[in-house]
Amino acid sequence: MADNKKAVNAITNMDEDFAQWYTDIVKKAELIEYTSVKGCMAIRPYGYAIWENIQRILDGMFKETGHENVCMPMFIPESLLEKEKDHVEGFAPECAWVTLGGSEKLEEKLCVRPTSETLFCEHYNHIVHSYRDLPKLYNQWVNVVRWEKTTRPFLRSREFLWQEGHTIHATAEEAIEETERMLNVYATFCEESLAIPVIKGRKTDSDKFAGAVATYAIEALMHDGKALQAGTSHYFGDGFAKAFDIQYANKDNQLTYPHQTSWGVTTRLIGAIIMTHGDDSGLALPPAVAPIQAVIIPVAQHKEGVLEKAGELLDRLKKAGLRAKLDDSENSPGWKFAEYEMKGVPLRIEIGPKDIENGQCVMVTRHNGEKSFVKLEDLETAAAEKLKAVHDGLYQKALENRERRTYSCTTLDEITKALAENGDGFVKAMWCGEEACEDEVKEKTGVGSRCIPFEQEHISDVCVCCGKPAKHLVYWGKAY
Amino acid sequence: MADNKKAVNAITNMDEDFAQWYTDIVKKAELIEYTSVKGCMAIRPYGYAIWENIQRILDGMFKETGHENVCMPMFIPESLLEKEKDHVEGFAPECAWVTLGGSEKLEEKLCVRPTSETLFCEHYNHIVHSYRDLPKLYNQWVNVVRWEKTTRPFLRSREFLWQEGHTIHATAEEAIEETERMLNVYATFCEESLAIPVIKGRKTDSDKFAGAVATYAIEALMHDGKALQAGTSHYFGDGFAKAFDIQYANKDNQLTYPHQTSWGVTTRLIGAIIMTHGDDSGLALPPAVAPIQAVIIPVAQHKEGVLEKAGELLDRLKKAGLRAKLDDSENSPGWKFAEYEMKGVPLRIEIGPKDIENGQCVMVTRHNGEKSFVKLEDLETAAAEKLKAVHDGLYQKALENRERRTYSCTTLDEITKALAENGDGFVKAMWCGEEACEDEVKEKTGVGSRCIPFEQEHISDVCVCCGKPAKHLVYWGKAY
Repeated sequence: MADNKKAVNAITNMDEDFAQWYTDIVKKAELIEYTSVKGCMAIRPYGYAIWENIQRILDGMFKETGHENVCMPMFIPESLLEKEKDHVEGFAPECAWVTLGGSEKLEEKLCVRPTSETLFCEHYNHIVHSYRDLPKLYNQWVNVVRWEKTTRPFLRSREFLWQEGHTIHATAEEAIEETERMLNVYATFCEESLAIPVIKGRKTDSDKFAGAVATYAIEALMHDGKALQAGTSHYFGDGFAKAFDIQYANKDNQLTYPHQTSWGVTTRLIGAIIMTHGDDSGLALPPAVAPIQAVIIPVAQHKEGVLEKAGELLDRLKKAGLRAKLDDSENSPGWKFAEYEMKGVPLRIEIGPKDIENGQCVMVTRHNGEKSFVKLEDLETAAAEKLKAVHDGLYQKALENRERRTYSCTTLDEITKALAENGDGFVKAMWCGEEACEDEVKEKTGVGSRCIPFEQEHISDVCVCCGKPAKHLVYWGKAY
Repeated sequence: MADNKKAVNAITNMDEDFAQWYTDIVKKAELIEYTSVKGCMAIRPYGYAIWENIQRILDGMFKETGHENVCMPMFIPESLLEKEKDHVEGFAPECAWVTLGGSEKLEEKLCVRPTSETLFCEHYNHIVHSYRDLPKLYNQWVNVVRWEKTTRPFLRSREFLWQEGHTIHATAEEAIEETERMLNVYATFCEESLAIPVIKGRKTDSDKFAGAVATYAIEALMHDGKALQAGTSHYFGDGFAKAFDIQYANKDNQLTYPHQTSWGVTTRLIGAIIMTHGDDSGLALPPAVAPIQAVIIPVAQHKEGVLEKAGELLDRLKKAGLRAKLDDSENSPGWKFAEYEMKGVPLRIEIGPKDIENGQCVMVTRHNGEKSFVKLEDLETAAAEKLKAVHDGLYQKALENRERRTYSCTTLDEITKALAENGDGFVKAMWCGEEACEDEVKEKTGVGSRCIPFEQEHISDVCVCCGKPAKHLVYWGKAY
C-alpha cells in the first residue's frame, strides 16, 4: 500500500490543476517524452499503440466506405500553395519552410505540408479527365507540421500525426453527401470506440477551414468543461477545382468542374481520451483502443502453482482475442495495481493461492474500481462482459459530465452567471448569424461558437446578443 | 486481341531499354504519379496497397521478435545531428533544412530527418538509466528525406517511406545478435514474401553506414544483372552512446555505455519487386503482397447466369481469405486480360457460359501464362495451389537469373571478359581487404564491392587485384 500511495501521489490532483494533471499523465503513463525540438514529441510505445489501434479501426471504416490509401509528398512548393487564395492566407503564417537542400539554396522554397489539399489538387489535375475517373476516394496517414507558438502534447503540437481524406466527385450533391458521411464515421468512432459522446454540427463562417464552403465538426466536452474539436469534414464546392484547373469531360463530353471534400482526425484524439476519461489515479482507456485490455496480476506469486495458473489465464484470454498481459515482475502487487491504474488498463485480474483453491479469480474494472469474484470457467465471458461494462461506464460518465455542464441561456448575463456558478461547459444559446454578435459573445462571456448543431432546438426567438430574430441554436464554449 | 496488343505495346521492351521499361511500368500500372516536387512521388492506391502489405507482414515479424513501434519527431536540430562526427559527415551533405517557421527565421536550423539515430539517442539519454531499462527494441514507420541529385521512383527518391528499427542493449554480444537477427528477418521476408533470393553479407568498411562499426546487408540481383541493396542492419558498438552520453547503472551499480543497432527497409523494395519479376507484359507480383491476388474475368458476361456465377466465385474466394476482385466492367475480356497482366495480378480466373455448362473455370498464372481448367468445386484449393505455384515460379526464375549471371573470377581480365560476354551480374572474386584494391577493381572493371557474404567460398588463394593473400570472398556488381 505504501508503494501504491507513492505512485498515486505522483500525479497532481485534477481539480487542483487540470493542466498539470494532464502533463503528469502523458509523462507518467509513458505516452510521450519531450525532445529538444520545441513542440515536437517522441511518442513512446504505450502512446503509439493507442494510435495504432485508432488507425486500425478507422482505416477499416474508411475502406468499408470505399476509400483507398495513397501517399502524397511532404513538401509543397510555395507557388503551389499560393494557387488557392483563402487557403494560402490561412496556412502560410504557420508553415515551416525548407530553403536549403544540402548546402544549396533552393530556387523555390518548399513548405512542409500543414495539410495536403494543394498536392491532391495537383494530382487530380493529372489523373482526372473523364466522368469515368470519378469519384476518387482517397485517404493518407501521414505527419503534418504547423508552426504553433504555444504547444501541448497531443493537443497542439508543431508536428502531429493524422489522416487526411481527400475526395473528388462529379456533383456537389455527391460531395456534400461524402462530407456528411465521413463526419458520421468520426462520430460513430468516437462514441463506439473511444466512449466519447460528441455533438455533430457545422462551423460558423468565421471558423471554417481556409478554402472551404462549409466545415462540419464533432465537438466533445472534456472533464474540465472545455470543448475539444475532435474531427472535421470540409466541403469545398468547386473552388479548388477552379484554382487548380481540374476539369472532366461529362457524359455529354462537356468540360465540367468537379467538387471536392477533405476530412481529418489527428493524434489529438489521444488528448481527448485522456481529458474525457482520466482521473486522479491516471489514465482510463476505452477497451477498443487500450494497448492492454486486461492485466493479470498474480498474488503471492512465489507460492506453488500461482504463476502457472496465471499463465493459463493469459493464454485463454489471448486465445479469446483479448490484448492481455501477465505482469510476473518482482514488483509488489500493490505497486502493480497502481501502475496499471495509472496506465488506464480497463480490466485487472488478480489470482492468488486462495483464489485457485476456490476456482476463481478477482476482476476489477478501472473506471469505477468495482471488484467481483469470477469462476475460472467463466473467465472469457466475464472478461468480455466487464470490458463492455467499462466502455458503457466511461461513456455514461462522460455523457453525464457533459449534461451537467451544458447550460441553456437566453441572455449574456445568464451565460456569465451559469459559467461562474457551475464552471466551464457548453452554453446553448440562439444566434442571429452575424459575426459581430459572435465576437461580442466571446468578448463579454469568454465562450466562442463551437458549432451549429445538426439537431437544432428552439430556446428563444431572438439572438442571445443583439435581440434580433435568431437563425440558429449554437453551442458555445471555451476550446482547447 | 486488338485491345490486348495495344496495351502490351504501350510498354517499352525490357531488353531494348530497361530503364524506360521500368518507368513505363511504374506509370502504366498506376503505382505512382510524378509531382511538381522533383524527386518526390505521389504513391497511388495500387502502389500504396503493395506497401501496406509489406508493412503488415514485416510489422508482424518485428512484433514477434519483441519490437515495439514508436514515433520520433521529423526534425533534427543541427547541433543534435552534429554530435556524432562520422554520422554528420555522412548525412549533412544530403539534408533538407528548415530555416523559417512562419515568417520568422529560426534560431537554429532544423534538418528533415534523413535517418533518426540522433533522435533515438537523445530519447535513450532521457529514458535509459538502469540495466532494468534495457534492452529497448524500437521501430518506427515514417518518411525520410535525402537530397539526392538523380532520382528514380522507388529506387532513389528525395522523400521515401521506410521503417527504421533502433535498439539499445546492455552488451555488445546482445546488440550484434540483434543486428544479425534483423538481417535474417529481412532475408526471410524477401525470400518467402517477395520471392526474391538474396545474398546475406557484411559491407566493406568503405561502404558502411555513417557512424556504424559494422553494416550487414542483403543484396538482390535484378533482371538486368544490376545489384540492389534490399535491406541493411547496422551495429554501432557504444560510439553513439558515448557521443550522446547514454549510460546505465549495471547490476553492480557502475555506469556503463550500452550498445546500439539500427536496421531498415524502404519503399525501394517495390522497385526490387518490379525489376526482379516484371516482364514485357508488365508487373508480376508475388502473391503475398499483391493487392489483388486473383481477378475473375467473366466471358460473354451479357449471357444469362455468367455474372451471377462470377459473383459466387468471388464470394467463395473472399471467404477463403484471398484478396479477390471481379471485373464486370464494360471493357472487353481481351482488354481486361492485358490490364491485369500489366498490373501483375498473380492469378486470372475466366468464366463463361461454356465453362458454367461444364462446371469448370479457367485459371491462368501470370508469371508463365499457364492455363488450366479447374472444376468449380475445387475453386478454393486450386486457387491456393496456383498462388503457391506463382510464388515458387517467381522465386525459381529469379534464382536462375542470378545463377546464370553469377561469375567466379580470379583475375581482373576474367571479370571484364565475363561481363562483356554474359552481361552485368554478380562477380565472385577474392579480396585482400585493402581499400586500394577495392577502388582499383571498380575503376578497371566497373563493378564495386556489394558485400562479403556470410557463406564464404574459396575461389583462389590471392586477391583478384593485387595478388597478395586473400582474406575474403566478395560479391561485386554494378548497383542501383
